[in-house]
Amino acid sequence: MADVVRVNKEGLERFCAAVFEKLGVPRKDAKVAADILVLADLRDKGSHGVARLGRYVEGLKKGIMVPTDKSQVVHETATTALIDGGRSLGQVVGHRAMALAIEKAKAHGTGFVTVRNSNHYGIAGYYALMAVPHGCIGISMTNAAPLVVPTFGRDALFGTNPIAVAVPAEGEPFLFDAATSVVPRGKLEVYERQGKPMPFGWAVDARGKGTTNATEVLENLGKRGGGGILPLGGEGEEFSGHKGYGLAMVVEILSSVLAGGAFGLGTYAAEGSANIAHFFGAIRVDAFRPLADVSRDLRTFLDQVRNSPKAEGHERVYVHGEKGFAFERECLAEGIPLGPKVVESLKKVGGDLGVPWSS
Amino acid sequence: MADVVRVNKEGLERFCAAVFEKLGVPRKDAKVAADILVLADLRDKGSHGVARLGRYVEGLKKGIMVPTDKSQVVHETATTALIDGGRSLGQVVGHRAMALAIEKAKAHGTGFVTVRNSNHYGIAGYYALMAVPHGCIGISMTNAAPLVVPTFGRDALFGTNPIAVAVPAEGEPFLFDAATSVVPRGKLEVYERQGKPMPFGWAVDARGKGTTNATEVLENLGKRGGGGILPLGGEGEEFSGHKGYGLAMVVEILSSVLAGGAFGLGTYAAEGSANIAHFFGAIRVDAFRPLADVSRDLRTFLDQVRNSPKAEGHERVYVHGEKGFAFERECLAEGIPLGPKVVESLKKVGGDLGVPWSS
Repeated sequence: MADVVRVNKEGLERFCAAVFEKLGVPRKDAKVAADILVLADLRDKGSHGVARLGRYVEGLKKGIMVPTDKSQVVHETATTALIDGGRSLGQVVGHRAMALAIEKAKAHGTGFVTVRNSNHYGIAGYYALMAVPHGCIGISMTNAAPLVVPTFGRDALFGTNPIAVAVPAEGEPFLFDAATSVVPRGKLEVYERQGKPMPFGWAVDARGKGTTNATEVLENLGKRGGGGILPLGGEGEEFSGHKGYGLAMVVEILSSVLAGGAFGLGTYAAEGSANIAHFFGAIRVDAFRPLADVSRDLRTFLDQVRNSPKAEGHERVYVHGEKGFAFERECLAEGIPLGPKVVESLKKVGGDLGVPWSS
Repeated sequence: MADVVRVNKEGLERFCAAVFEKLGVPRKDAKVAADILVLADLRDKGSHGVARLGRYVEGLKKGIMVPTDKSQVVHETATTALIDGGRSLGQVVGHRAMALAIEKAKAHGTGFVTVRNSNHYGIAGYYALMAVPHGCIGISMTNAAPLVVPTFGRDALFGTNPIAVAVPAEGEPFLFDAATSVVPRGKLEVYERQGKPMPFGWAVDARGKGTTNATEVLENLGKRGGGGILPLGGEGEEFSGHKGYGLAMVVEILSSVLAGGAFGLGTYAAEGSANIAHFFGAIRVDAFRPLADVSRDLRTFLDQVRNSPKAEGHERVYVHGEKGFAFERECLAEGIPLGPKVVESLKKVGGDLGVPWSS
């Protein structure tokens, strides 16, 4: 792709942080939000990366997100906490909440924090990974704007509701970070742009029937007109779509229902409010067995899986996190690849706010 | 089905408990193991119910399972514990471990217990549900005999590795209880018995290629000859099979790797040993918000989902646990339906041990 620009990580972080600062976000928080955005690009999750910067800018301008951290601990025990995000930036609230979970785990073995009244927090995996340098298993999940239809249903009732779990291992950690839907919205957008039929089994139309028409599904989602993306496992029960649907419910319950936040159609329901909820957990490995032993055994297990015989026509079995960490190494050496439209949108955002773009 | 026999719950529990007692299991433990087996039948999970009694009898006779509880707490903190199951009955170890997790949650907000060197523990949901009357969210997972092939792999490296999560709600609790594979082994056995091709996308052959031949897949699994069941999401990455594969890894890691037990091909690897591992968690709801508030909000959410518009051709959207609880009510009123082959196998087991069958 000739038009792809390779951008320096630190420069991109500085640019994003400067944009946040211009909108009233304190320097420390601006850096957190910028780092989490750029990390998504580093890990090849560009749909959650700097391409979204414009949406955060818009959210801050409209007051959906407030620039200074208004989050508050509403209730707390030695091992748990409930935080009201006060409509602050999801990354800032998420970072604070996960840090609190880790602090509790370090003191008491485990820490769990649920958060209501927050905003889109970026990639779930970032928070799970925060636990790893502290010798903890990290858990992170969030609800999101309604895009996913329950099994045998017709309306999108919950988000792509990702689950992330990170576990320390010798070498790279294990990092599971996945939406509980069969695909993210971004995959439909690719087919929409290309005007091609998408695979049957990704989404349903307004009547709840399987469809290959990505444009129609996205239009319907935009106006909450019925239909949407299918849960992991697809349509009906033949390939266990009810399991993906159940996992989405678990995320919604542990995030918003437990926290007293908005669930289902309640997110992004009122003008000027997202009301997104998250759930974070940290579990200290050495509360069970010495960290070195678990890290070694996990590496053994991961290597056994990676080195196992391959399906005909395939040369690699990947373990979770592996692809993202490899992409990150490539980006650190050669720069982060950004498409021309993304670069254009960043220049526009910077231009409007007087933040110079340099790559 | 004319041949199906309706059996009284208490009678079936007494019969199974008497069988366990004849094999040296103390009365209290025999009752726990029997109750968990029968509960699977009550919840329409017959593959994990009394149809397996003969396999437990065989396991006890061969010494894969020891009749008296030899489980020991190896390491413990206020919020965590590591238990060595001492090859005891999985149900007895699981019940003890989950009770310990609940005790810790009641005292400190959260409790997590990992278990190694155990045996098949029956339905995962039983343990998760134990937490609900204590006002806790319950979590239960276990590894299992290798049947499931990783994405782009060719060999079955992990079990159907179920995850169960139970949450208190007004009326019936929410209960997610599902294997992380696209289907359980039992579904393949149905197609094998009928000699029909199974749906494409459930399993791969010894070369790692999709197949509809259930008999061949089951034969290969029996001799660890390659191929096996696919993870939730199916073959390859198009429908996100790597997500089901990742969830199976999370279960394997939290159970066996954390506990220092056998993982992957290590389960059922040595003659006379299963070396199965479990993971249990309990989180006290009122460590976040009052139990009554969360129970009410969860009921509201579940009802919103149940009452949402249905896909064309469907009349119900089910929430998780609902079907099983309805089946249980029917069984309590009319008896538990058992097929003729299951009844025959139970009569044989009872006859061999001098335990009379009466239905």
